[in-house]
Amino acid sequence: MNASPVLINGQPGHTIEITDRGFQYGDGLFETILLHQNRLVFFDRHMNRLQQGCSRLGIPYPGTELLYNEAMVVAQSTTEGVVKILLTRGSGGRGYNVPIEPKPNRVISWHPLPANVAAVCNGITLQLCQTALSIQPLLAGIKHCNRLEQILASRELRDPSIGEGLMLDTEGFVVEGIRTNLFFRKSNTLYTPQLDRCGVEGIAKAWILEQAANAGVETCEKRIRLEALFQAEEIFVTNSIYGVMPVVQFHGGVATVGWPVGAMTLSFQEAWEACLLSGAE
Amino acid sequence: MNASPVLINGQPGHTIEITDRGFQYGDGLFETILLHQNRLVFFDRHMNRLQQGCSRLGIPYPGTELLYNEAMVVAQSTTEGVVKILLTRGSGGRGYNVPIEPKPNRVISWHPLPANVAAVCNGITLQLCQTALSIQPLLAGIKHCNRLEQILASRELRDPSIGEGLMLDTEGFVVEGIRTNLFFRKSNTLYTPQLDRCGVEGIAKAWILEQAANAGVETCEKRIRLEALFQAEEIFVTNSIYGVMPVVQFHGGVATVGWPVGAMTLSFQEAWEACLLSGAE
Repeated sequence: MNASPVLINGQPGHTIEITDRGFQYGDGLFETILLHQNRLVFFDRHMNRLQQGCSRLGIPYPGTELLYNEAMVVAQSTTEGVVKILLTRGSGGRGYNVPIEPKPNRVISWHPLPANVAAVCNGITLQLCQTALSIQPLLAGIKHCNRLEQILASRELRDPSIGEGLMLDTEGFVVEGIRTNLFFRKSNTLYTPQLDRCGVEGIAKAWILEQAANAGVETCEKRIRLEALFQAEEIFVTNSIYGVMPVVQFHGGVATVGWPVGAMTLSFQEAWEACLLSGAE
Repeated sequence: MNASPVLINGQPGHTIEITDRGFQYGDGLFETILLHQNRLVFFDRHMNRLQQGCSRLGIPYPGTELLYNEAMVVAQSTTEGVVKILLTRGSGGRGYNVPIEPKPNRVISWHPLPANVAAVCNGITLQLCQTALSIQPLLAGIKHCNRLEQILASRELRDPSIGEGLMLDTEGFVVEGIRTNLFFRKSNTLYTPQLDRCGVEGIAKAWILEQAANAGVETCEKRIRLEALFQAEEIFVTNSIYGVMPVVQFHGGVATVGWPVGAMTLSFQEAWEACLLSGAE
């Protein structure tokens, strides 16, 4: 069942104790990192987010060097793919009560690249999900292992032509795609939802905002209503595996709206490709 | 590490594949069931809630008879304790996307009774938690494995004299204890928070509401503000392991409020004990 290489706390393996709190309660964090030309793309940025998550949840961070070395061992027989690092609080504690001195479990695994990376970069259809994201500032931004909302939203996407689901929060504000962050341009400003109450602060999202700022594009992170999307001149979504995906169609209730692939979207795609080639992260 | 009996999909074991979606995303459900005099107390009620959770998340329910038989095997060398049934969607699917035909994993384990059952039944101190419960009607009521909010709340309870933490929702309404449901009496009415937006519909909670109705006590489930608690004449919390726990003191910010153990609380405690003795569930 597990032909792909896996290291569990530094040792080859494919199982975890059922007492692990990640298994019992989703008491953990994870990162999925692009492996490209034998490099772990944006590794330090991923580790910064993981470390922030550890600090928020009170899980000891195992250290960037250890995780890097183990990730490279897992990836050693290949040059491309995805490396996932999953870190839990480990076993112990009574019920929800955490152990006083947690011994985290780290699981590092390699996975092949999704088959549709090239296709989605030509443009995807976004579907509005009925599953809303709950508002929880204490868990916003970090990539924790409580992902039932994303799972329920994924179950809504039954049409295989749909590339991504758009999630609003329970107050109706636009937050993100199920596994991506969302951007849109109107005039010369690049907008993206503020993620202080829910959502994941994507590695690619932060990179896009930096690129935009360097290019003199005005950026704006704020609460965004769905209606604002319909006035957008171009829309794209991002994540650290797929890079920049243009949104060319939107299905939401009765409305279907379309956009051409925008010039700004294309320039970010080119910059992303160049960044992957050069390794200048 | 795992001396206690465990059955994993009907076989003795203590580990699970790391690909299990419960481990990856908290994609599962659980029940903790009181074992008393070799009986699984309120077993059918627990299974009804589990089945509702399965239906909500789209996880196939393995069947009450199978789970009962396996729970009794796990409990066969003892007459008292706690039996936990944890059911996940199993492995498979790509990322958040669920497998088309999930093969759930079921983990059934026995645990000793907590040491403080008798003590807490004399009265506990409740502390107001800063961690609020997010509002998510799609997950409200069921006992799913996304429990980071309860874990963060538990971490706030540093004083060992505190028996339970009180959780509000992100709009400030009273919801429940971290591992209990909450009731209070004012005049001849028994109030408990409405759990349609967050919280777990406790087995003991439903039983209390039935007992109250049978005794001619008016009951009311509604949104409750914290201020209403200060006007209560008696307060108690319940769960299926501890039964009925009187709340005799409340710490919330600057305020400390106390109550005597109320007559209604005592009568529910007696009815609970009688129910356990008689097996008339």
